[in-house]
Amino acid sequence: MARMVVIYRTPKDPEAFDAHYYEVHVPLAKKLPGLRKYEVSQRPILTPAGDPEPYLIGTLYFDDLASLRQAFATPEGQACAADRRILAPDNDDLQMYLFEESEV
Amino acid sequence: MARMVVIYRTPKDPEAFDAHYYEVHVPLAKKLPGLRKYEVSQRPILTPAGDPEPYLIGTLYFDDLASLRQAFATPEGQACAADRRILAPDNDDLQMYLFEESEV
Repeated sequence: MARMVVIYRTPKDPEAFDAHYYEVHVPLAKKLPGLRKYEVSQRPILTPAGDPEPYLIGTLYFDDLASLRQAFATPEGQACAADRRILAPDNDDLQMYLFEESEV
Repeated sequence: MARMVVIYRTPKDPEAFDAHYYEVHVPLAKKLPGLRKYEVSQRPILTPAGDPEPYLIGTLYFDDLASLRQAFATPEGQACAADRRILAPDNDDLQMYLFEESEV
């Protein structure tokens, strides 16, 4: 399996972020071709002492990295990426990691 | 489900890190009471342009946040945490996030 992990820091307007995330972004992302599962963190998100608590962590699962990259090359993927830039306009508003994983 | 996501930045000695991670840390972590699954990233880990590539992302799954916290209060959990500080001695050598998630 491959996953995309997106870690959002606390937005300026959390209420507006939540509305946009659940009412616009999630429905857009669920149209991604090849998406197998989409999970969203609940609060609290615990971190080591001194590290800031992120606001939300989304994890999207695909069969492999090739499928994940193909999904974001489609019109649905482009719409999703554009919408993500509305949610997190600045470069340091989020961290994003795409990778395959294996169970140990 | 709850998960612990641990994101390691590139260590000074990757070969020594790998040996310690797979030969010492993984076996210790697999003794954690209540651990349901343990997944490790493969390379590459893709990031947005300009963001550094992390070295390794480990994800440990538990039934819920209470079980996760209980696991790290046991002797096995303490051993695991101590060993993690050998792998990542400095505060900024890793990021760690503990949270429950729900499917959307």
